[in-house]
Amino acid sequence: MKRSSRSPAGRLLYAQSGGVTAVINATAAGVIEAARAKGVQVYAARNGILGALREELIDTSKETAAAIAALRHTPGGAFGSCRYKLKSLEANRAEYERLIEVLRAHDIRWFLYNGGNDSADTALKISQIGKALGYDIRCIGVPKTVDNDLAVTDCCPGFGSVAKYTAVATLEASLDVASMADTSTKVFILEVMGRHAGWIAAAAGLAGNSADAPPHLILFPERVFDEAAFLAKVKATVERVGWCTVVASEGIRNAEGQFLAEAGGRDAFGHAQLGGVAPVLAALVKEKLGYKYHWALPDYLQRSARHLASKTDADQAYAVGKAGVEYALAGQNAVMPVIVRTADVPYRWKIESAPLSKVANREKKMPASFLTRDGFGITAAARRYLAPLIQGEAPLPYGKDGLPKYVQLKNLAVAKQLPAFKP
Amino acid sequence: MKRSSRSPAGRLLYAQSGGVTAVINATAAGVIEAARAKGVQVYAARNGILGALREELIDTSKETAAAIAALRHTPGGAFGSCRYKLKSLEANRAEYERLIEVLRAHDIRWFLYNGGNDSADTALKISQIGKALGYDIRCIGVPKTVDNDLAVTDCCPGFGSVAKYTAVATLEASLDVASMADTSTKVFILEVMGRHAGWIAAAAGLAGNSADAPPHLILFPERVFDEAAFLAKVKATVERVGWCTVVASEGIRNAEGQFLAEAGGRDAFGHAQLGGVAPVLAALVKEKLGYKYHWALPDYLQRSARHLASKTDADQAYAVGKAGVEYALAGQNAVMPVIVRTADVPYRWKIESAPLSKVANREKKMPASFLTRDGFGITAAARRYLAPLIQGEAPLPYGKDGLPKYVQLKNLAVAKQLPAFKP
Repeated sequence: MKRSSRSPAGRLLYAQSGGVTAVINATAAGVIEAARAKGVQVYAARNGILGALREELIDTSKETAAAIAALRHTPGGAFGSCRYKLKSLEANRAEYERLIEVLRAHDIRWFLYNGGNDSADTALKISQIGKALGYDIRCIGVPKTVDNDLAVTDCCPGFGSVAKYTAVATLEASLDVASMADTSTKVFILEVMGRHAGWIAAAAGLAGNSADAPPHLILFPERVFDEAAFLAKVKATVERVGWCTVVASEGIRNAEGQFLAEAGGRDAFGHAQLGGVAPVLAALVKEKLGYKYHWALPDYLQRSARHLASKTDADQAYAVGKAGVEYALAGQNAVMPVIVRTADVPYRWKIESAPLSKVANREKKMPASFLTRDGFGITAAARRYLAPLIQGEAPLPYGKDGLPKYVQLKNLAVAKQLPAFKP
Repeated sequence: MKRSSRSPAGRLLYAQSGGVTAVINATAAGVIEAARAKGVQVYAARNGILGALREELIDTSKETAAAIAALRHTPGGAFGSCRYKLKSLEANRAEYERLIEVLRAHDIRWFLYNGGNDSADTALKISQIGKALGYDIRCIGVPKTVDNDLAVTDCCPGFGSVAKYTAVATLEASLDVASMADTSTKVFILEVMGRHAGWIAAAAGLAGNSADAPPHLILFPERVFDEAAFLAKVKATVERVGWCTVVASEGIRNAEGQFLAEAGGRDAFGHAQLGGVAPVLAALVKEKLGYKYHWALPDYLQRSARHLASKTDADQAYAVGKAGVEYALAGQNAVMPVIVRTADVPYRWKIESAPLSKVANREKKMPASFLTRDGFGITAAARRYLAPLIQGEAPLPYGKDGLPKYVQLKNLAVAKQLPAFKP
């Protein structure tokens, strides 16, 4: 990869997409620091792809090096993110043309889109329409999702930290339940994110690895919820251990295919909006078994808990951002930097380039070999895969006030060049 | 305080009571290490006062010094706790007499009961009945409660850590919501513990201290829930800031005095068992204002999160345990080591002895001066009080597996001397 010593012409645009994570800003730091090292100016789109459509761009060169470095330990999306899926080229060609117009107006030659499989699809389409409209743009999808459901990459930045949060929460709450079970709560239910894939729930399994260690049951969206089997195992566990910890994916369904927690609402992508399978299970336990219960639903707390991030995850999040810039500046297009595992113990990984077409609009479920035969636990193969992802701590600076020192960027706007556009 | 150089005769009994905390085991470490230093053997009651009634005692002298030291950073109740309130002397004299019988059989001369105001009452009664039955026992109540509602003491061990957890969770989740609000969640509701006193909810106010910083609304059990005022403030906040974070105490009630989250169940003390005010508020926001919402209910996660403990709290938890032993061995009786604040900035505190009669069965609510006029926020006076309690971090050892290294004691049973007794 031979490059001229002059700064390459043009700017780089970075945008965050979809649900944010504890480490998505570490990716932003990787992007901006790598681009700065090459003398390339980085603009960020405000609120993801919508900012690109609205020409609401942020000039990250106005931020200090210290502020960018602090992104490595700041959760949330520093430039704003959005849930907005571009329609197909046929259905809304105007939006794609507008994007190219904005990129051209600001001399943007590289576009890094940081998100999940929907975002990979968008990045792929922009690279295609750029070519069709004769505008030379390199599009890179940069992986991010707590759901860990992207194809090709071994794991997804964002997942390792929510996995660590879930394992630690399972361990800590179980110590609480164990000490009170004689006279108080016997069944504790922790509801975790995971609409279609049970990766986060599976990570709870790392909390313990002996016969009676918590969690005693994990409920995966990959398996149909079997009420009788669930109740029988809860009962047997309480009778043997004295108490029982259950970890449930928000996305579990009954034999009729209905979500146990169906809330009725739908998000911008048309996905059912879930939340609340834990109280449904708790009521079942109370009614059928008579046990006192507690349940927890950490919701956004689990994906924003930078204070408990995994070092592996934070390092990988930074690395995919940095690699994305390197690929883009080297002229790669329609690719994604993915994580390749080269060894389990000790864990080793590297970053490689993969075509976006192999990632876009696909969903990686857990292999059947990761679930125990009864469907309520994880296998040794799952542990081998998951264990390295929560390893290492990624300590934070705390202020004298006892709170983490999270950075707030200036986010100064770039002057608009174009007429307004309403997406 | 002049003491003989010989070990004092007799043993010390330690018991944990009520809901456990992230730092109650730090108190246990303070007790055991202080007693060991004086050559006094410590027994612990298994599952709190029930273990004392059942003569289920644990010999802590079988534990290594390293294991006891590790209690300082291990959440949950290492010897088990219980929700069990002794009836009055008149109603169940047999239980008190049994307790004295057990103490006498094991030559227990000092009893340290680690709990809230119910436990202070129990410790007080045991000291009275001991006197009536001619058995010389020194009873010390050692403070512990996440609810921070004990009288006399400036704050309660356990509270500072849940306060820190709540402030950090509010901050982190708000960063998430802020970055997504353009197209996704506009109102986020965090439900926290606090049946009758809003101390934990108030601590969320430490997350921000400027006009539009989160949390934008705090709902306290000290104030009647005013639906119209709540909705008006949520609406105004979303219109001005773009999003809104609400922190709600589980114990908020409407003008009729009903809990918004009434679940119907009752615990062993006859308290209503709550949980679920967040979804009620979320549904209200959706129905009346049409905003997309998310809500979280961390439940036990908040009080077991030793990974995010406050150093102030962990230090105080240890100190009250140590002081309890010193008071007992010095011959004090029916007292509690309490925390006395001597300065706000920089924060200074010391431990003093207070009569249990002034603590038992009382409940400290938040002063009215701690709530803003509209009842949705905390005042400067509240910040002055709360701020020091979350200061400092109390780092944990983590294993190579990425999980905190929490200790599991051997908890070896002491041979029984007496016939069985069913409490």
